[in-house]
Amino acid sequence: MREKLTEERILEMLERKQYKELKEELENNMYPVDLADILEEFDQKHMVMVFRLLAKEEAAETFTYMNSDMREILIGALTDSELEEVMEEMYLDDTVDVLEEMPANVVDRLLLATDEEKRTQINQLLQYPEDSAGSVMNVDYIAVRKEMTVAEAILKIRQVGLNKETIYTCYVTEKRKLIGYVDVKELLTTSESKLIEEIMETNLLYAHTTDDQEDVVRMITKYGLIALPILDHENCMVGIVTVDDAMDVMQEETTEDISIMAGVAPNEDSYFETTVLEHVKSRLPWLLFLMLSATITQMIMNSYESALAVMPQLAGFIPMLTGTGGNCGSQSSTLVIRGLAVEEIEFADLPKVIWKEVRVAVCISLVLAVVNGIRILIMGQGDVMVALTIGLTMACTVVIAKVVGCTLPLCAKKVGLDPAIMATPLISTLVDISTISVYFAIVSKAFQL
Amino acid sequence: MREKLTEERILEMLERKQYKELKEELENNMYPVDLADILEEFDQKHMVMVFRLLAKEEAAETFTYMNSDMREILIGALTDSELEEVMEEMYLDDTVDVLEEMPANVVDRLLLATDEEKRTQINQLLQYPEDSAGSVMNVDYIAVRKEMTVAEAILKIRQVGLNKETIYTCYVTEKRKLIGYVDVKELLTTSESKLIEEIMETNLLYAHTTDDQEDVVRMITKYGLIALPILDHENCMVGIVTVDDAMDVMQEETTEDISIMAGVAPNEDSYFETTVLEHVKSRLPWLLFLMLSATITQMIMNSYESALAVMPQLAGFIPMLTGTGGNCGSQSSTLVIRGLAVEEIEFADLPKVIWKEVRVAVCISLVLAVVNGIRILIMGQGDVMVALTIGLTMACTVVIAKVVGCTLPLCAKKVGLDPAIMATPLISTLVDISTISVYFAIVSKAFQL
Repeated sequence: MREKLTEERILEMLERKQYKELKEELENNMYPVDLADILEEFDQKHMVMVFRLLAKEEAAETFTYMNSDMREILIGALTDSELEEVMEEMYLDDTVDVLEEMPANVVDRLLLATDEEKRTQINQLLQYPEDSAGSVMNVDYIAVRKEMTVAEAILKIRQVGLNKETIYTCYVTEKRKLIGYVDVKELLTTSESKLIEEIMETNLLYAHTTDDQEDVVRMITKYGLIALPILDHENCMVGIVTVDDAMDVMQEETTEDISIMAGVAPNEDSYFETTVLEHVKSRLPWLLFLMLSATITQMIMNSYESALAVMPQLAGFIPMLTGTGGNCGSQSSTLVIRGLAVEEIEFADLPKVIWKEVRVAVCISLVLAVVNGIRILIMGQGDVMVALTIGLTMACTVVIAKVVGCTLPLCAKKVGLDPAIMATPLISTLVDISTISVYFAIVSKAFQL
Repeated sequence: MREKLTEERILEMLERKQYKELKEELENNMYPVDLADILEEFDQKHMVMVFRLLAKEEAAETFTYMNSDMREILIGALTDSELEEVMEEMYLDDTVDVLEEMPANVVDRLLLATDEEKRTQINQLLQYPEDSAGSVMNVDYIAVRKEMTVAEAILKIRQVGLNKETIYTCYVTEKRKLIGYVDVKELLTTSESKLIEEIMETNLLYAHTTDDQEDVVRMITKYGLIALPILDHENCMVGIVTVDDAMDVMQEETTEDISIMAGVAPNEDSYFETTVLEHVKSRLPWLLFLMLSATITQMIMNSYESALAVMPQLAGFIPMLTGTGGNCGSQSSTLVIRGLAVEEIEFADLPKVIWKEVRVAVCISLVLAVVNGIRILIMGQGDVMVALTIGLTMACTVVIAKVVGCTLPLCAKKVGLDPAIMATPLISTLVDISTISVYFAIVSKAFQL
């Protein structure tokens, strides 16, 4: 195992003009995804120099791993024929990803560098809705006919199957309809004279071009597939989604879910690629909405102003009560949101979920109320009456928070909203309101304020 | 494409004693993972009946997808020789997963049903630490020698390569050391007389048995691999982790991260499999800790009791201020935690992250302060002085929250803690404390209380 090719070593070799050695090293000793990371740190001149040293195939793959700024620089620096080579080598799904992020004038230049046939395919892929199966699929796959023998099928793979993304499953089609599939391991371990028809698997798994990409990922994960065939609306096979693309989608979707759960509008760009203003734009709406919703809490408190004037120490318990309520609610909503995402929980489970959360809440509220009561007495923050009132409020808050927390994500799912919006930020605001209402209702009764 | 085999249809066929038809249907028209889902709804008697109808291979695979309760029932119902068949057909990594969840007496019975060689391998796998690469790897893989020709390698695959999890990459070993690999597509598209040595790839990617499973998943995702070889500490190859297992690990790890971020101790079982008491146990510690931490907020507020007695309406602004602070902080911490998880952000980026968050915070705080000020004036909740004080507090809170929110996960990572614990629950408690301090410091100055 050779020494790793580092940023410094590449720059050193460039300086010493050891282009031939560098070219060789890059080819044998570097993965395109790592090279793209390294080139990100280079200045424009050096980046273009290194890129020009790459073999066609490596160049195309490195290009797909770059961020959009780097791509624009490169596109500006490369000649038309160099660009043509890159476009020729790129897989179609990657090409579409690149095009979707580029400004219109760059897209024009890229499309000009593409041959007619590929351009037609690209235009078709660009028409699928964002985040649909069609938008992430690959149109290259190996199709065989059921009348072929195993030997003929292997020959076909030898002839066309150089694309790493497509080779391990052959799809059996008839008039473009999918009728079966054969894994390459099956081909390799079966007698060569057998017909495909005899060995093909006919219990088919597939998705349609307009299905959500998340559903595709779920099927690939659930059934442990290397690729899933994609059909159009006449049920003709048009492409496949491969497991490596599925993993990327899974990671993207998780990031999106987690962002939404934190009250941040999701964004395709990474943290650093997103500008300050874009960050503001994606975070501000929820903050504004929630801040204004808190007006309700304030109005409730203001109506108890006289009570607070008499017993100002009552205010001191508020952050603890709302904080605990918020945390309880977010625990429940998060578990339910995740359960929905991995398809363990569905709307029909609502009664079961509520029953579970109520029991959990009762146990938790007992412990919290008792511990807090003892704390109040020890720290001399109040008498037994205060400890009891706070304990009772705490118990009500926990139960309400857990029930609200588990119910809202399920209801959101039911009406077709993303359950992830029912996460901590919204839940805690709602729980704040109920906590404050309950608290003042109880204290004003207890202390006749 | 045939009609799907539903729960009802299976029960109907059982009732009519159409065992032969059912057996056939199960074999051709049902995926083991779906069957395990369906059997979960069956009573014990019917479940065992259906399971006995399955072909050996399907039975073993269905078994791996069942939950531990179902497995225990089956193990109790099957004869020793039936059990032996299941154990024989299961992949080693799945067997280990099953054993890890079973009570000791069941494990003994299962191990008795296993042959000597497999038992030794199982015992070895069971020794790898939980969540390590060794614990998720598969010990079956295709090893070839560099002196073999392509034709000989293909022959070897034909002889041993019936295991679907291992066939698509052949590993070239020499005295058990990994020296290269060849993809099957390479074998299929190369002249049969070439030597493996000539075509093998020597730029190796691998992990060690004790590496974290998350690192393995990251490599598989990053490089788009079908499998990653795993070496022991003498650098001998001992197994592979395949992409389908990686996807499962990825999903598990995400669930774990999301749980921790919501202040829930992670748990291998699913929501419904976890008992009420286990739910309480995994949620209570954080709630208790955070509730007691809120005592600090309360002590600060109590020291301003006289101010509250004079101006009780000041209390009404507290939930809004702490709520907004908490939300701002959780946005930042969530984005940074996710950035760390997908390796976009690292500790060295701390100054860059803080600088970005400060600029975002300044923009956001301006908008929130102005909107809130106008709201206060319109709703008559205070005069210009009140609006200004709240605005100033709001601005400070947002900036502090964003800085705390982005800094703590990075520091946690640096000292070897899981950054996910620095999520909403803890951040909001910390932000509460600083918000209340700032608020009362400002109002007591402004209104000379």
